[in-house]
Amino acid sequence: MLEVDAERLVAMMNEQAEFGRTDTPNELNRVAPSESHWAVTEWFRELLEAEGMETWLDEIGNLFGRREGTDPEAEPVLIGSHLDSHRYGGIYDGNLGVIAALETVRSLNEENIETRRPIEVVSWFNEEASRYEPGLMGSSVWAGRLDLEDMYARTDRNEKPLREALDEHGYVGDVPAEPQRAYEAYLELHIQQGPSLLEAGADVGVVTGVIGRTNGELTFTGVTDHAGGTPMHHRQDTLVAAADVITQVRRIPRTLGDRTVGTVGEIQVEPGNRNAIPGETWMTWEFRDPDDHVVAAAYDRLVTEAESAAAREGVQVDVVEISRSESARSSPRCIDAVSRAAESLGYDCSEVFSGGGHDAQVVSTVCDAGMIFAVNESGRSHTAEEYTGWDHCVTGANTLANATLELAG
Amino acid sequence: MLEVDAERLVAMMNEQAEFGRTDTPNELNRVAPSESHWAVTEWFRELLEAEGMETWLDEIGNLFGRREGTDPEAEPVLIGSHLDSHRYGGIYDGNLGVIAALETVRSLNEENIETRRPIEVVSWFNEEASRYEPGLMGSSVWAGRLDLEDMYARTDRNEKPLREALDEHGYVGDVPAEPQRAYEAYLELHIQQGPSLLEAGADVGVVTGVIGRTNGELTFTGVTDHAGGTPMHHRQDTLVAAADVITQVRRIPRTLGDRTVGTVGEIQVEPGNRNAIPGETWMTWEFRDPDDHVVAAAYDRLVTEAESAAAREGVQVDVVEISRSESARSSPRCIDAVSRAAESLGYDCSEVFSGGGHDAQVVSTVCDAGMIFAVNESGRSHTAEEYTGWDHCVTGANTLANATLELAG
Repeated sequence: MLEVDAERLVAMMNEQAEFGRTDTPNELNRVAPSESHWAVTEWFRELLEAEGMETWLDEIGNLFGRREGTDPEAEPVLIGSHLDSHRYGGIYDGNLGVIAALETVRSLNEENIETRRPIEVVSWFNEEASRYEPGLMGSSVWAGRLDLEDMYARTDRNEKPLREALDEHGYVGDVPAEPQRAYEAYLELHIQQGPSLLEAGADVGVVTGVIGRTNGELTFTGVTDHAGGTPMHHRQDTLVAAADVITQVRRIPRTLGDRTVGTVGEIQVEPGNRNAIPGETWMTWEFRDPDDHVVAAAYDRLVTEAESAAAREGVQVDVVEISRSESARSSPRCIDAVSRAAESLGYDCSEVFSGGGHDAQVVSTVCDAGMIFAVNESGRSHTAEEYTGWDHCVTGANTLANATLELAG
Repeated sequence: MLEVDAERLVAMMNEQAEFGRTDTPNELNRVAPSESHWAVTEWFRELLEAEGMETWLDEIGNLFGRREGTDPEAEPVLIGSHLDSHRYGGIYDGNLGVIAALETVRSLNEENIETRRPIEVVSWFNEEASRYEPGLMGSSVWAGRLDLEDMYARTDRNEKPLREALDEHGYVGDVPAEPQRAYEAYLELHIQQGPSLLEAGADVGVVTGVIGRTNGELTFTGVTDHAGGTPMHHRQDTLVAAADVITQVRRIPRTLGDRTVGTVGEIQVEPGNRNAIPGETWMTWEFRDPDDHVVAAAYDRLVTEAESAAAREGVQVDVVEISRSESARSSPRCIDAVSRAAESLGYDCSEVFSGGGHDAQVVSTVCDAGMIFAVNESGRSHTAEEYTGWDHCVTGANTLANATLELAG
């Protein structure tokens, strides 16, 4: 049974949190790519090399480090997560998983433990899509789910192509963005992005799957008109129709299941003038559930509600589903390895479904993959309020280290 | 009985519509101040001078022209409106009133009709507030309701002070922005900004008053959270609370009166990310009614509904009333002059309340003031769709000309 060095882990977590910190305590603005994300990546690369690991950067900016196994031909175990943040993100998020992966190697080195399989550590590029859509970009290009040149051509708000932004910092490595070999398994530690482990009183979570999701946009088109001169019965007010849909997106989950969630995160009105009835309203929507049938039902309900709202207000509506991702189950081998590791450490380990998307679900298309969730003590995520106390960070890291040790043989 | 030259009026309307035209038919982007607004103002000044009128520009960019009366000491009758537009405005709006004022003088000149009182024509600066807040700026500074230096210091989106923007085009005249003398009366022709004259089948409208208005903003503050990981019962979603208020702003007028209107024209959410529950939502609101008690009741209802919505969603709300303007009645003398003019011309003239604010309500604090509404055949305003056919333009202009003639003696 391996135990990581808690003090060293905490020191590294604090150190990484200096890159891209804002004036708000525990807040990170470390979008990918950016000066600060590049700086933390370089810092991390030096730490990997200080452990004697060979490192490489691939063409999409994923950073890898390799610790040899006694059998260099054996398929390696890959562990890691991501170091990029939301524009106003917290300091834990994916960072814990990357730092804990390095700490796993440090502990093995310190204890002079050799593994049969090589262990590779990865920091995936652009998980968050804070500057360039879509998210899970680095792992998806690596896994062959997204096209490299297509991603290079993507632009940010200022119309700058990703390739240009990458070149500014030297992100573009010379190693092809694809698996360099077959992998035995992938493990990712991440903080939970919700409160369920906290509420269950668990020490740590083993992720049994990722929920399915549908998301998209809708646009109501009505009539821009004068807010003073237009009687109420003459109005075709798209914001009123949008309000109906927002209310329904709040209600639909309740009618479908206790794990269903639905959110409207963005809304924009045209002309956006306080004296004008909004002639156009655009909004996003999304639903998630572990059961793909529930996701499909939520989508159908949304369309029905949008059409009803449009009819009531005499406006047009166009509903666009941008993507639907099926729910995924973690590899049983990985679930077992994590559960056994937690048990051997005396931790109370709960099985949880992930509500958010993670690089692990992409990597699962390449090799067996699994995830560990550290308890989130505020239950919040993508904000400076997210909070995973150091004890829970260490618990997660110990679980990762031992599960990795088992899988690496 | 005076009849204006319909062909000449239409020609001038078409000519003014060339200044600031966009690629969309019948659309004007002629905000004040701007290159195109300055150009139309210069063009108009030349036309005034071609009629032998003395002209002057005051310190806030209001343009005046004066036709002498047989008694130069008599208090003049002032007529006009504004030549500035919304960013995507129509070609009629205030322009009809300015052009018809000039056409009144042209017709009097052509018919060699002298009046006892001088007639002054005015093009007010910045009625629309498309670039610099607040609207009704030129008339309000002139009437002493707004401070000149305060207005000069106002900035646009690019933080440019108004004074700088005015100087770029020579808008700042040397005549003080205040009444140069006492005025007998003010008349303003404007297209109606709603459909009621059209629905009543009237030829023209005499405005008996301007409705009262309350308007402001409100901000809900909740908790930004992850759209995937946060169960529905853990959410404090400010956009859901805002949707309740939008729905209520649609309903409240119905419960208060058949002329009450309520509108939410702008909304913004933070962080405005499709994966995040909106932790903050800001929106505008406004209510109007001819009865100030109804306006007060609508405001009280709004506050109650906002607080209920906040309580339901477990968020905070801050409601701010930015301004409340009392309803105003037109001067009976002006109403009579307009009604008699319409009657003598054989027009079916309806009494209407104005839903929008107009320079006339500001000028009414200086002298007797009244308004004429031309029929709006689309019922729409502040859009390229606004439409007052030439016949209705001529009807409005004839009414203005004869009412002016009566008041000028």
